[in-house]
Amino acid sequence: MKNAVEVIQREQLKEKPTESLGFGQHFTDYMFVMDYSVDKGWHNAVIQPYQNIEISPSAQVLHYGQAVFEGMKAYRQGESIVLFRPEENFKRMNRSNARLNIPEVDGECLLEALKQLVALEKDWIPEGEGESLYIRPFVIATEPHLGVHAALEYKFMIILSPVGAYYGDEQLMPTRIYVEDEYVRAVRGGVGFAKAAGNYAASLAAQTRASELGYQQVLWLDGVEQRYIEEVGSMNIFFVIDGKVVTPELNGSILPGITRKSIIQLAEHLGYEVEERRISIEEVLDSEHISEIFGTGTAAVLSPVGFIKYKEREIKISGGQTGSITQHLYDQYTGIQAGTIPDPFGWRVEVPVTDKV
Amino acid sequence: MKNAVEVIQREQLKEKPTESLGFGQHFTDYMFVMDYSVDKGWHNAVIQPYQNIEISPSAQVLHYGQAVFEGMKAYRQGESIVLFRPEENFKRMNRSNARLNIPEVDGECLLEALKQLVALEKDWIPEGEGESLYIRPFVIATEPHLGVHAALEYKFMIILSPVGAYYGDEQLMPTRIYVEDEYVRAVRGGVGFAKAAGNYAASLAAQTRASELGYQQVLWLDGVEQRYIEEVGSMNIFFVIDGKVVTPELNGSILPGITRKSIIQLAEHLGYEVEERRISIEEVLDSEHISEIFGTGTAAVLSPVGFIKYKEREIKISGGQTGSITQHLYDQYTGIQAGTIPDPFGWRVEVPVTDKV
Repeated sequence: MKNAVEVIQREQLKEKPTESLGFGQHFTDYMFVMDYSVDKGWHNAVIQPYQNIEISPSAQVLHYGQAVFEGMKAYRQGESIVLFRPEENFKRMNRSNARLNIPEVDGECLLEALKQLVALEKDWIPEGEGESLYIRPFVIATEPHLGVHAALEYKFMIILSPVGAYYGDEQLMPTRIYVEDEYVRAVRGGVGFAKAAGNYAASLAAQTRASELGYQQVLWLDGVEQRYIEEVGSMNIFFVIDGKVVTPELNGSILPGITRKSIIQLAEHLGYEVEERRISIEEVLDSEHISEIFGTGTAAVLSPVGFIKYKEREIKISGGQTGSITQHLYDQYTGIQAGTIPDPFGWRVEVPVTDKV
Repeated sequence: MKNAVEVIQREQLKEKPTESLGFGQHFTDYMFVMDYSVDKGWHNAVIQPYQNIEISPSAQVLHYGQAVFEGMKAYRQGESIVLFRPEENFKRMNRSNARLNIPEVDGECLLEALKQLVALEKDWIPEGEGESLYIRPFVIATEPHLGVHAALEYKFMIILSPVGAYYGDEQLMPTRIYVEDEYVRAVRGGVGFAKAAGNYAASLAAQTRASELGYQQVLWLDGVEQRYIEEVGSMNIFFVIDGKVVTPELNGSILPGITRKSIIQLAEHLGYEVEERRISIEEVLDSEHISEIFGTGTAAVLSPVGFIKYKEREIKISGGQTGSITQHLYDQYTGIQAGTIPDPFGWRVEVPVTDKV
């Protein structure tokens, strides 16, 4: 893939959505596909029309969940298209792959292919407030065999979806979080740190319960003691404690978010003291020192938490409003993403756009 | 499905395998398929040629692992075809479904459809020693949507595979087991009790390590203390301690095996004392009272364990041979399955075979 990937053209382009975009509901005209076999390694890289794929009923992904994914975004800014730390996503995918015995991918080559795909689909990148083109690279085990073993055949794909703000139109509306005290998402020694498909299916029951109780997201506790804060369903979590920015330390069961990592760097750069350490649910509930809570993630970006419910108690944070440090980090972070604030970290990666791709 | 399911005929039947069958490598001519949508519930039940299916690249099973499966076997005995406690499998599937927010299936109707499918495929049921027709019912989330939520569309399928003995030709050859002390399979509050696809992907790294070290299977310890025996990769585990048959109690993270349940009933029926309780790895390593260990599962049936490796120690069980109680239970259990010993439990379910199905 040093050269451009072959493009199989569609006969007709799709209509672009005119209603509210939502999240992951609309898909663009093209997708990137690549196959893996033991003999050939990764091969058959192609950009082709977005359409159904054929898969064997005995493909291992359908039975044993051998699948990982990534999530990233492309932003359109005037004539420019910008990705945000995309190399980090391919690095993390390879860590997920290693844990699930999926063969490594070549992140540099894939980044070039991704740029080609995004440039081809530039007209699909929405420009409204909070809107972007969500990028979903994923790998699935396709070998048609029911023995439980690491598959010998895989498919890697990238699909694209124009999306709106994750929590609807109001970007900085504080969210309501339910602390799950029965279900467990992950435990050390498991696959919590990987973007493994099965982690998400396992989270649905708790998410459904939280929704029924009027909360938008689940806050997970650790699997061993069910006492230490891990992460929110689709976000890592940060606390402002005595003016310090504090987040749970990575322990093997927490997803190492790229937004998490970026917010830590940004907060330090802005002069905040940052701590990564264990935080118990008691500390969160009983501390008079916690002034703000927010979540971070590619989909949600940075989202203030207004209410936390644990067993019979519900506490209100920052009076249910967005706190000043949360607002400061949000403005700086989204400003760097948008290019309205200088990017001292080299996080923005421009996608070359030519008329002919 | 009170009436027979519609059958879409193949134009040409496949050649049956002539070499060693292996496990889950060959598939029969037909499969059962049924769709789910919120509007229609389960619908479109059909028996059709076994072939690739079309699926959206954004189908939720490929991203979030919302999939469960079951495993059961059909045996051919002269002119009879026999299933073994099939209603238990559909009950367990519904427990798995409930945990993964997948809509319930109608086990009674599905059992009738399964009988129709197996009768249609009767010529695929092998009759050799240790051979059977492996039956794989499974459900996958097919809704094309990247939001993390319980899918609104599913596909339920049954595929069939003629199989040999799970550990190769020698049915009662004692296996070598590696006790995993780093990776964790499941923890209470998680999905360990469900036949959730993601559980199996998460187990591959440990299975690979065990294989590299010369062991056939992993023995998992509990996720909280990493101290109590849970299960083997594809089997539940039993110990003979002072002549008693002892197995780990079900705790939410152990798979409630149907063979496990049957062996408990059979052992009690044969006059053995049976205990379900916690068993620590220290008890296993240091007890002079453990005389036999064996695993149970649909694929492996009942398999003696000859060696157990934990950290730097390896212990030999029953002199690396099959113990007498293991042999007794194996003979009785497979005799009931084969119809050569009376079935006092009503476990055997005959499949009506007519010339016209």
